[in-house]
Amino acid sequence: MCTAATYVTKDHYFGRNLDLEFSYNQKVTIVPRNYEFNFRKVKPMKSHYAMIGMAFVVENYPLYYDATNEKGLSMAGLNFPGNADYKQEVEGIDNIAPFEFIPWILGQCATIAEVKSLLDRINLINIDFSKELPLSPLHWIISDKEVSITVESVKAGLKIYDNSIGILTNNPTFDIQMFNLNNYINITKEVPENRFSSKLDLDIYSRGMGAIGLPGDLSSSSRFVKAAFTKLNSISGTSESESISQFFHILGSVNQERGCVRLAKDTYEITIYSSCCNTDKGIYYYKTYENSQITGIDLYNENLDSQILISYPLISGQHIKMQNR
Amino acid sequence: MCTAATYVTKDHYFGRNLDLEFSYNQKVTIVPRNYEFNFRKVKPMKSHYAMIGMAFVVENYPLYYDATNEKGLSMAGLNFPGNADYKQEVEGIDNIAPFEFIPWILGQCATIAEVKSLLDRINLINIDFSKELPLSPLHWIISDKEVSITVESVKAGLKIYDNSIGILTNNPTFDIQMFNLNNYINITKEVPENRFSSKLDLDIYSRGMGAIGLPGDLSSSSRFVKAAFTKLNSISGTSESESISQFFHILGSVNQERGCVRLAKDTYEITIYSSCCNTDKGIYYYKTYENSQITGIDLYNENLDSQILISYPLISGQHIKMQNR
Amino acid sequence: MCTAATYVTKDHYFGRNLDLEFSYNQKVTIVPRNYEFNFRKVKPMKSHYAMIGMAFVVENYPLYYDATNEKGLSMAGLNFPGNADYKQEVEGIDNIAPFEFIPWILGQCATIAEVKSLLDRINLINIDFSKELPLSPLHWIISDKEVSITVESVKAGLKIYDNSIGILTNNPTFDIQMFNLNNYINITKEVPENRFSSKLDLDIYSRGMGAIGLPGDLSSSSRFVKAAFTKLNSISGTSESESISQFFHILGSVNQERGCVRLAKDTYEITIYSSCCNTDKGIYYYKTYENSQITGIDLYNENLDSQILISYPLISGQHIKMQNR
Amino acid sequence: MCTAATYVTKDHYFGRNLDLEFSYNQKVTIVPRNYEFNFRKVKPMKSHYAMIGMAFVVENYPLYYDATNEKGLSMAGLNFPGNADYKQEVEGIDNIAPFEFIPWILGQCATIAEVKSLLDRINLINIDFSKELPLSPLHWIISDKEVSITVESVKAGLKIYDNSIGILTNNPTFDIQMFNLNNYINITKEVPENRFSSKLDLDIYSRGMGAIGLPGDLSSSSRFVKAAFTKLNSISGTSESESISQFFHILGSVNQERGCVRLAKDTYEITIYSSCCNTDKGIYYYKTYENSQITGIDLYNENLDSQILISYPLISGQHIKMQNR
Repeated sequence: MCTAATYVTKDHYFGRNLDLEFSYNQKVTIVPRNYEFNFRKVKPMKSHYAMIGMAFVVENYPLYYDATNEKGLSMAGLNFPGNADYKQEVEGIDNIAPFEFIPWILGQCATIAEVKSLLDRINLINIDFSKELPLSPLHWIISDKEVSITVESVKAGLKIYDNSIGILTNNPTFDIQMFNLNNYINITKEVPENRFSSKLDLDIYSRGMGAIGLPGDLSSSSRFVKAAFTKLNSISGTSESESISQFFHILGSVNQERGCVRLAKDTYEITIYSSCCNTDKGIYYYKTYENSQITGIDLYNENLDSQILISYPLISGQHIKMQNR
Repeated sequence: MCTAATYVTKDHYFGRNLDLEFSYNQKVTIVPRNYEFNFRKVKPMKSHYAMIGMAFVVENYPLYYDATNEKGLSMAGLNFPGNADYKQEVEGIDNIAPFEFIPWILGQCATIAEVKSLLDRINLINIDFSKELPLSPLHWIISDKEVSITVESVKAGLKIYDNSIGILTNNPTFDIQMFNLNNYINITKEVPENRFSSKLDLDIYSRGMGAIGLPGDLSSSSRFVKAAFTKLNSISGTSESESISQFFHILGSVNQERGCVRLAKDTYEITIYSSCCNTDKGIYYYKTYENSQITGIDLYNENLDSQILISYPLISGQHIKMQNR
Repeated sequence: MCTAATYVTKDHYFGRNLDLEFSYNQKVTIVPRNYEFNFRKVKPMKSHYAMIGMAFVVENYPLYYDATNEKGLSMAGLNFPGNADYKQEVEGIDNIAPFEFIPWILGQCATIAEVKSLLDRINLINIDFSKELPLSPLHWIISDKEVSITVESVKAGLKIYDNSIGILTNNPTFDIQMFNLNNYINITKEVPENRFSSKLDLDIYSRGMGAIGLPGDLSSSSRFVKAAFTKLNSISGTSESESISQFFHILGSVNQERGCVRLAKDTYEITIYSSCCNTDKGIYYYKTYENSQITGIDLYNENLDSQILISYPLISGQHIKMQNR
Repeated sequence: MCTAATYVTKDHYFGRNLDLEFSYNQKVTIVPRNYEFNFRKVKPMKSHYAMIGMAFVVENYPLYYDATNEKGLSMAGLNFPGNADYKQEVEGIDNIAPFEFIPWILGQCATIAEVKSLLDRINLINIDFSKELPLSPLHWIISDKEVSITVESVKAGLKIYDNSIGILTNNPTFDIQMFNLNNYINITKEVPENRFSSKLDLDIYSRGMGAIGLPGDLSSSSRFVKAAFTKLNSISGTSESESISQFFHILGSVNQERGCVRLAKDTYEITIYSSCCNTDKGIYYYKTYENSQITGIDLYNENLDSQILISYPLISGQHIKMQNR
């Protein structure tokens, strides 16, 4: 399934793992300011903030997995099966299809405060992109440079949660994910002292024993806990190299390795790509399962006043630097 | 601390994570066949198999962390504090200092069978390399293209274990590490069925739930279990790119992220480098904590009949490919 | 805190552990049919079903912890701190104080269907019994001979859950407790097969290894899982002796032993009493922390048409049978 | 399988759970001082310390499961399958069959120091009691009023371990069981503080959360940890009633409830009996799975100078005290 994270050093970083058993032909895609965004139930957006992110482009429409706009507002959709519940159209409010949600928000908002205003009058409607591309059950993390929120459209309606830890995975609902962190109150990055019994000598036979009990499987609950622990305790320098290194290490702590989650014969879930956007500089970095070198695309190296989508195919296959050839 | 692994596709791969809170100035180092290896208590080796690996070179002597020779025999030393016990010199057998152990074995042996013959008459002696460089408490994994063994010099003597899973971390002793895997008998890569009670409907709310219970902390026991699970269930193509990608993913599953293991004020254990040697082709690949691109050094691109050590400093800092600049 | 359970063999059984660090002077208390039940906001009940259970009797009023009426309907209140939210009085519906809730329901209802009708028009109001006896934050399990429900008055209103497993502990809310059982899908009473890897021989070195991962601490989440597992897998004969033995074993699986949960200096939570009511026969059995012999009180051995409360103090201190004196 | 424990208040206590899927006809059995103990390979013992314990008596020979002698020395044999290794007869030392081991030790020794002297010259030999009663694979805990040891006859020879915690279960070997306690270093009886991250508010939603991670399944490893935690943290008064109550609670924390460990169709492991001997007073108390009342037998209420075995059958079926009949 997936994991999203935020991280702050000198700059702000936002990214995610996409975990799936197959791959659409997703590309790093830039939407310039004057590309016309059409929506099914609301008026087109003729000009808007430029944005960059990972998208599957169909019929010249960017189906974004995650993106950041030129104001640094970022958003990612993550799988939410069984819980996502999209609604019938309701008159008088903004009826937005889930696949339009990222453009709708990133096109117009610079801050979470602005996002919350839009969410006050939104209705995520049950309209497929096409017969071949039905809706995915999703929930979203939206982050500006200060705070993050989680948005979930469930049976009981649209839920908006403050996401104080800047982490999102998948099921269960965000309130239960956050509650579950309480169960890891004993976990620590520190060298543990003996709390079992003073009548017994225990041996700290390894470093890292303070975190015994931290889960290492790849279920969405366990990834939430592990990613939260790694992110909240992360330490790094503030240079771009140090920052994105640490960011990819946070995502790497819950990376899905091929073979560990078998879905069916010859079908395994893996982390197809990991992304990290410097939301201050508008640079979108990514790695793929089979190319661990970081590739970057710079939003500001494009003509952002254009009307035309710009896409870069993912570089795949290891790009190895041979040091003595 | 550290994790070592082996992996086989079309070729054979051997490598390790080096987890420490500081870094010596280790380099990828090639020992050509005619470099004279001196030993403290046994005769010098004037010619021997060539080898490549990661070493801290002091006074023109390669203190290897891990290495592979031209026959594909590979060996790595991993931290073993509290358990490693080096001995007094004993006459009539091979008295080898632990820092000489990798050269001693890789210089002479092509197979584990040959290694076992040498181990029959070895004594790992308690002699420091120098006052400034005392002995590290270590144990070792040694692998040819078929099998692996673990070698531990403990109070009770020299223990040699078949290492059927091709994984080594640190404490406790290898027999206890292997025993502990029994406690994970219920863990599976498969989609789980409900085994809790037939009177209750349970929801498989996430992929990966079959492996709930797999540990995710960074203690040596937990890394052993997690690396074993990831390696034993690994699936990959057989190309060089696919093989080394999967290998680094195995090591990545137990990577140490900065901040998660705090040793003292401002002191954190991290995975300084990860290595992967194609032992058939003699290519040594590595990544560092801050350079996720894979760098390779080809043993056979050097003059292996030379007498002179060859060293390549580690490339560090992210080498980012900018796709649109 | 506490654990409640139901169990069915030939007859129906309902009971609970009361876990606290101190003890009111609770007694097994029988309310005959013509005892006049007064309520703060609704009319008195002059006649009603007789009931038996554990109560702290104050000013001739039975503050029931758990009770069963002559129709076999049973009810227990368990601690629910932080979540229980009692309301302001609302006109036109039944305003019942939480300490009146058990009499209100057991006095009038024979089945869960009847309970649900009453719950449709109930409001649990925020009125203390007295200045000295403020309200406890509680939630309730109510069971007839077929089904159980859980009732929680929380900020969002009164929640009524089907309780298909017949187990209740404390926090979190019941929906999260039930969700959490999904995380134990791999736990089994059966002899496990090796699911970790087919490339590795694992040793089933002990019986019971299929349930590795079952929690054994005394937090309310862990007791919920352990009690659910024990109850759902329980096997026993159908005689009264076998049935109540198994019932007390279910409760015993989450018993709180003195010393394991320290609240403050010299203050420890323990299981003060465990109860088991045969709801068909109206016999209330109990054990205490320091008297493991089962004591029984028979509802039908009393004059149930009386107006006068009947109370039996708990027998405490081990009642040991000396076999050779 | 089984769990043994020691406990000290004013007096000393020693006992065990016997966990099996079937029951021999074991009885509380007293061996007076002049009963002649015959041994297969060493000379008979015509007079010896008197002892009391649980035994299956065959051909007038007490096959003890656990026993205490009049000096307070106590001993229990617990299942040790796969590890127990009994030897060929060796001349010049004491060749004792495992079923003779408890009489051999308790007949002659008053202290662990004396036991150790005997163990210096013992050989546990591979002789069945009879064709119908082959040897069980066992290891033993032996305790005087100060200390305990564990004795294991394994392939590598006879191992004697100081047992500083006074707990024994089954596999693995005692050194690994003790090592495994290190993995529970974070477990505490105390109210936990948040160690996960200072950037996050966590809710202590339940008492007992400091011990999250304590295992609750019934495998021998998990029972060892849980019984050790419960025993080492136990608090009780010092009266006989309080002491034995706490003792049975320690054993109760790892009691095997019917249904949780299924061995085969209709075959479940349960705790058949729990015993607790006051080793100062010579009173042997027990409970059974289906009789929770404590029954006691007083060693000193018998003629201890007799030559004749004395046995009391176990009282079974709940002995319920009806309080209002």
